[in-house]
Amino acid sequence: MANLTDKTFEVFDTTLRDGGQSEAVGFSVEDKLQLTEALDHLGVDFIEGGWPGANPRDDAFFEAARGLTRRHARLLAFGSTMRAGNAPAEDPVLSGLVSARPDGVVIFGKAWDLHVELGLGIGLEENLDLIRESVAYLKAQVGLVLFDAEHFFDGYRADPEYALRTLDAAVAGGADRLVLCDTNGGSLPAQIGEAVDAVRTRFPDTVAGIHCHNDGGLAVANSLAAVEHGVRHVQGTLNGLGERCGNADLTAILPNLILKLGYRGGALGTAELERLTATSRLVDELANRSPQNNQPFVGQSAFAHKGGVHVSAVRKDARTYEHIAPEAVGNIRRILVSDQSGKSNIVHKLQELGLMERLEGNDAAVTQVVERVKDLEHQGYQFEGADASFELVVRRVIGDLPEYFRLVGFRVLDAKRHAGEAPESEATVMLEVGGERAHTAGSGNGPVNALDHALRKALAGFYPELREMDLVDFKVRVVSAGGGTDAAVRVLIESGDGHGNWGTVGVSANVIEASYQALVDAVTYKLAKSGRSDHLQAGDSFAERAEAGLDASR
Amino acid sequence: MANLTDKTFEVFDTTLRDGGQSEAVGFSVEDKLQLTEALDHLGVDFIEGGWPGANPRDDAFFEAARGLTRRHARLLAFGSTMRAGNAPAEDPVLSGLVSARPDGVVIFGKAWDLHVELGLGIGLEENLDLIRESVAYLKAQVGLVLFDAEHFFDGYRADPEYALRTLDAAVAGGADRLVLCDTNGGSLPAQIGEAVDAVRTRFPDTVAGIHCHNDGGLAVANSLAAVEHGVRHVQGTLNGLGERCGNADLTAILPNLILKLGYRGGALGTAELERLTATSRLVDELANRSPQNNQPFVGQSAFAHKGGVHVSAVRKDARTYEHIAPEAVGNIRRILVSDQSGKSNIVHKLQELGLMERLEGNDAAVTQVVERVKDLEHQGYQFEGADASFELVVRRVIGDLPEYFRLVGFRVLDAKRHAGEAPESEATVMLEVGGERAHTAGSGNGPVNALDHALRKALAGFYPELREMDLVDFKVRVVSAGGGTDAAVRVLIESGDGHGNWGTVGVSANVIEASYQALVDAVTYKLAKSGRSDHLQAGDSFAERAEAGLDASR
Repeated sequence: MANLTDKTFEVFDTTLRDGGQSEAVGFSVEDKLQLTEALDHLGVDFIEGGWPGANPRDDAFFEAARGLTRRHARLLAFGSTMRAGNAPAEDPVLSGLVSARPDGVVIFGKAWDLHVELGLGIGLEENLDLIRESVAYLKAQVGLVLFDAEHFFDGYRADPEYALRTLDAAVAGGADRLVLCDTNGGSLPAQIGEAVDAVRTRFPDTVAGIHCHNDGGLAVANSLAAVEHGVRHVQGTLNGLGERCGNADLTAILPNLILKLGYRGGALGTAELERLTATSRLVDELANRSPQNNQPFVGQSAFAHKGGVHVSAVRKDARTYEHIAPEAVGNIRRILVSDQSGKSNIVHKLQELGLMERLEGNDAAVTQVVERVKDLEHQGYQFEGADASFELVVRRVIGDLPEYFRLVGFRVLDAKRHAGEAPESEATVMLEVGGERAHTAGSGNGPVNALDHALRKALAGFYPELREMDLVDFKVRVVSAGGGTDAAVRVLIESGDGHGNWGTVGVSANVIEASYQALVDAVTYKLAKSGRSDHLQAGDSFAERAEAGLDASR
Repeated sequence: MANLTDKTFEVFDTTLRDGGQSEAVGFSVEDKLQLTEALDHLGVDFIEGGWPGANPRDDAFFEAARGLTRRHARLLAFGSTMRAGNAPAEDPVLSGLVSARPDGVVIFGKAWDLHVELGLGIGLEENLDLIRESVAYLKAQVGLVLFDAEHFFDGYRADPEYALRTLDAAVAGGADRLVLCDTNGGSLPAQIGEAVDAVRTRFPDTVAGIHCHNDGGLAVANSLAAVEHGVRHVQGTLNGLGERCGNADLTAILPNLILKLGYRGGALGTAELERLTATSRLVDELANRSPQNNQPFVGQSAFAHKGGVHVSAVRKDARTYEHIAPEAVGNIRRILVSDQSGKSNIVHKLQELGLMERLEGNDAAVTQVVERVKDLEHQGYQFEGADASFELVVRRVIGDLPEYFRLVGFRVLDAKRHAGEAPESEATVMLEVGGERAHTAGSGNGPVNALDHALRKALAGFYPELREMDLVDFKVRVVSAGGGTDAAVRVLIESGDGHGNWGTVGVSANVIEASYQALVDAVTYKLAKSGRSDHLQAGDSFAERAEAGLDASR
């Protein structure tokens, strides 16, 4: 990379490969393809896609990825140096890499004498030969070869000269990058800086890279320290996915380098950085992992303000409590409603949701809302993620919510008749809508699903707009830990209607009751949002309505 | 602190105060008392308990805390400098602090000119007077005064001389500590080091402290940088609780300082550090927060090994993939069973659970176990946290598990008869135990609770040892996101019998079915553990047994 200027660095993402080593994370081929497109769109230079030859799923991914159009990113295959005793052309690992036809390869070799002797069980000189020959073979076959010096920093502390000689071997083989790995994640920034200095002195003409793990909680700081000492190739994963404590988190490294230290990624500058939060959320979604709210830069709480003093200062000048503008990383400021909220928070939240005009000049109502919210939070409700339920609380307090329907009762029955079969779930709901009584039954894939169907069947005849509505997500959390099966649970439901999504919440010791509350809020919010001020539309009898509702109910 | 030697530092915990600002965390007075004892036991020097006068809960806490016996820790009250225009003795904030009768006080003052003018709306000189007079008054009244220079690092970057003059004012008032706060959490380690150098040069005789937030993902590194530059008082929270991205995480700072950099806390050395993981888990428990598995040092995954190569290397020499010994922080090594597991992981897990002897020499069974585990994981099962279910999988594969009972069927009914009331839950279970049929009913606080009661009522008459058993924890997680109310859920149940706890798992789109599976595994494991090889004990008829079981069922 002759054109790497002093303040430009390469972004290397290994979310697909090292990130997939996270506990309880496993990406499908489809997930990996979707992430490849998102990473390319974000502007990363290199995407490490997996280990072809070692894993059939990775073979399928490299095969499928050839069909993707990429803007900028190069797709790399990962593997190890060849096995001792093999000829390069006959080594299965090296052939697996070549067969995948990637844009380049990353191979790791042992840089710590302990691992050479204990892990590989070969001599130190033999390890150097393996590195040199493996790199040389791949360089000839593939063209672009990055060398990951595994355990480089531990190795450098144990035997600095031997660790550097492994890099000599890689350079002799023609390696394009020397990537220094803190594989065990336990190094300190000063140790990183010192070792990087030695590498830069010995190899001034080869781009050095850094690959950190977060076992000491220092992966971001270690990566920044490496860059400050001359590294220009930075490896990491989005959201810090990775085994044990994870890899260095690119969602923190990138904004620190770009916004604070004035660096620029090859194709990733301040404009691309605005996609960071969205890309981070996509990774969590595909990893089936709840986003970590307190994650620096991209977390839902990263720019959330709770204390009353903070909220009023931020409203005057955001710099007072925000280190960067949330928009710079595509995140947003949030004002929280919570137990510790002062009135100013609630007022801000009301403004944010456009509810303040309803309360204009009505201080007593604002006080009532505050009291009601605190009381509900005490019971285990939580309105973060349930803005729609929050709005309904406000509208109920000020009497600005028609009674669209009234519950007479419901029953939900789960019956399992044979050991090997899933139970059948059936629900009945009886409602009063206007002066009429609606009594419907629904079945479903579980008790909450059945109840959802029966409720919507009862209502969709009266309120056809409910047919536009879908449930997008359903979350259950045990609120009071340690209580066994009678603990209270909080259910969060996200609904959508093609125009937008909204979140609602319910709490009860009974999961069905908690779900029912959240379902009722979800449909009530939809009706209020559609501008329903009456509770019924003129027309059909209940029987006809229920009939019409039938289609909408599944 | 004249006896602070060069390598000793003070540990200041603000989990109770700043940690309580975390989104969705709120500690009760009882929680705070329990945490105070745990923190004292861990060996921290200072516990910041709350802001008395600002919050009735904190008043109650300081009142109640006077009854606690403490080993070492001093309990401090937190507050701000007095309001402009007040005489110290008449200022409500200062009086609130004095009335709480703490062992010392921490007061924060503005060290950034922007905040003085914008936040307080007073002149820069007037702010210095407020700091000096507030500190002096509290010093006379309470004796020990720590000064938190809020936004010190932002202030130092904006106007270094003014920031330092706020410390002059605190020293003039008699402050015992000068705590430099990175309130917005956006500083970089080099900036911290430079500002600390200036403070140490100007105030060589006063102990300097550090208080970082994690908005840039660098709070741990920034705290370590401050210590390396001469700070000897370190503030933080356990698990990094705190608003936005949290405070500096003491669970990472302490082992880095003590195990890696050779420092020692006043009463917190290597022996106390072994309590770190347990204390961290207690904080999460009381904060009602799921522990973060990838948390450095104390997380459940911090020493978990998944890839086959890693597992076999760790078994030869733990240093190969572990930066410290897990026991040094009271954590444990775990070998994961997962999709990516090689056979060696499963074998290690089998050894860990003492199951290998059952499979000795039976390679076909090992292969079957591996296949079965992979298949179940594909369906959404997860055996991390469900060792008991894992053991049952193994025993079922090798035919080493008696059929203690056979399900004929169950029904669970939830009926809500009035809008304002919680539904009633009722369950019936029909089982075959030996040649007899047991048909029981149970009610409960929710459908799963009712089913739990009916099941145990049916079994306890036959197997009295089930009466020793309790459900300790119950967790529900939606496995397949984006599926609405018909998404699959995973239920994890932890059970205990006074001798130990065990975890079981169930997965289904139906939460009741998933719970039933986990309940059945829980009782089956208990029976297997009790050495039941037969399915029945001689004796009473079913009617008598069911009667006897009645007491045990709630």
